[in-house]
Amino acid sequence: MELGMIGLGRMGAGMSRRLHRAGVRVVGYDPDIEARTRLAQEGIETVDRPEALVATLAPSRILWLMVPAGNTVDQVLETLAPLLAVGDLIVEGGNSYYRDTLRRAEKLQAQGLLFADVGVSGGLWGETHGYGLMVGSSPEAMTRLRPILERLAPAPDRGWVHAGPVGAGHFVKMVHNGIEYALMQAYAEGFGLLKAKAPFQLDLAAIAEAWRYGTIIRSFLLDLIADVLRENATLADVAPVVADSGEGRWTVQEAVDLGVPVDTIAAALFRRFASQDPEHYGDRLLAALRHAFGGHAVQRAGA
Amino acid sequence: MELGMIGLGRMGAGMSRRLHRAGVRVVGYDPDIEARTRLAQEGIETVDRPEALVATLAPSRILWLMVPAGNTVDQVLETLAPLLAVGDLIVEGGNSYYRDTLRRAEKLQAQGLLFADVGVSGGLWGETHGYGLMVGSSPEAMTRLRPILERLAPAPDRGWVHAGPVGAGHFVKMVHNGIEYALMQAYAEGFGLLKAKAPFQLDLAAIAEAWRYGTIIRSFLLDLIADVLRENATLADVAPVVADSGEGRWTVQEAVDLGVPVDTIAAALFRRFASQDPEHYGDRLLAALRHAFGGHAVQRAGA
Repeated sequence: MELGMIGLGRMGAGMSRRLHRAGVRVVGYDPDIEARTRLAQEGIETVDRPEALVATLAPSRILWLMVPAGNTVDQVLETLAPLLAVGDLIVEGGNSYYRDTLRRAEKLQAQGLLFADVGVSGGLWGETHGYGLMVGSSPEAMTRLRPILERLAPAPDRGWVHAGPVGAGHFVKMVHNGIEYALMQAYAEGFGLLKAKAPFQLDLAAIAEAWRYGTIIRSFLLDLIADVLRENATLADVAPVVADSGEGRWTVQEAVDLGVPVDTIAAALFRRFASQDPEHYGDRLLAALRHAFGGHAVQRAGA
Repeated sequence: MELGMIGLGRMGAGMSRRLHRAGVRVVGYDPDIEARTRLAQEGIETVDRPEALVATLAPSRILWLMVPAGNTVDQVLETLAPLLAVGDLIVEGGNSYYRDTLRRAEKLQAQGLLFADVGVSGGLWGETHGYGLMVGSSPEAMTRLRPILERLAPAPDRGWVHAGPVGAGHFVKMVHNGIEYALMQAYAEGFGLLKAKAPFQLDLAAIAEAWRYGTIIRSFLLDLIADVLRENATLADVAPVVADSGEGRWTVQEAVDLGVPVDTIAAALFRRFASQDPEHYGDRLLAALRHAFGGHAVQRAGA
């Protein structure tokens, strides 16, 4: 069994290592020489051009893309597709918007290529714990992909699902990440409340650690929170600015399209936007308004 | 080691069994003869009056209350306190509002009794998995309680925490439950969105099962969701009415008192209120308003 991995960043490298250890011949490609060198030093084959990747794999090939969502995916596919043969399988494993995926798959399938979109969860821990995998594909592509999924997942029969046709993999991963936004926000609010209860002087790290066992709210995210607070309970050196990377926005957009209320997911997304905003124009307006109608004091700030 | 358990409902009975199996002499009391009989048939001592409970235990006693929050706690304490001796320890393990706990503890401690409030999580699963336990108490009461906690928890060194002084146990459990509201709501929204994406015909039970392994959103609640959907994916026979039992309300009230934003917890609570409301007067008003200013059609309903 062999596979070409395109994109050797944190996710692509981790997945390559896990497959390599499981006995799959992995050949990695990344334009970044450092990413290639790191993996090559660990005994995993790498090549320095897409053409070399295609040449070294026997048809019918499996080529797994693990590159940043957006234009990079389109660029890689434009380079790659003309090099491939009918029956080769392209697997798009990034956090792509499923509507982009539908568009791309249509074009590639018209060229006689097989296509599968796979939402991959697990982050840095996936390499050791195994990855959660959500697949959108035809039954034919799924049959080809299955031995790979069984090795990437935590166990052969666990942690992967053929969610539906092409697009369904990235759709399900998008919703997974939307849920993740609200789960994270829920814990953040709870710990914020514990922190604010000054008279009790609660030991947040000890509480997080205890909550990991026996409680209804135990989870992988809570395990991570306990790790974070054990090292750094004050978080004084962490700026309160929370980035977002697309899936939360798409989840809320999809909810609007389908007319489904997603109160907590939307609230979590909007809290991130508020955290990202250095200007807080809305809050300034509210302060000014209170002053205007009630003469309430306004804190003065620089322009 | 011995302990009197007052209240042999689902939680009190499960905890009694777990302690009994761990070698603790448990004597159970409940006004309900059926609850007593069930436990007695399993070889756990029971008595039919609080006086008998106090008489059969040697000072300094530990008496653990596992009764419904609210007036029942006050009633039990009024009956129990006069029977006890200085140095006896009352443990209040229900989901009481921590402000009630502070009031009760003050009174009992003035009588020379020790008091601890313990938030207990784990539900029906706690008996086998062990319970999560959050304790508010003096160091003295904590020392007395510790061997019991080590046996109720999933492991002697895991799943329990001396959160702080009296009141802190129920406060931390309240926040735990508030977080739980938002976690549940987050998953519910995500699955609602998956369900609404008709063209993909997603298998929600298979997705829930796969998400349990390797993903960032894996959790105990997700395990339960997978169980539920495996048995009953359509949920057609489950009315969309979600009860609430106090802790969510208290969490939001506390957040208001402390001025802490709890966007997702409040949203989850308010969604439950909406689900409980058969009249939906607000929605009727909105429909009528749209008709009034835009002539939009109004669906007619019975009075």
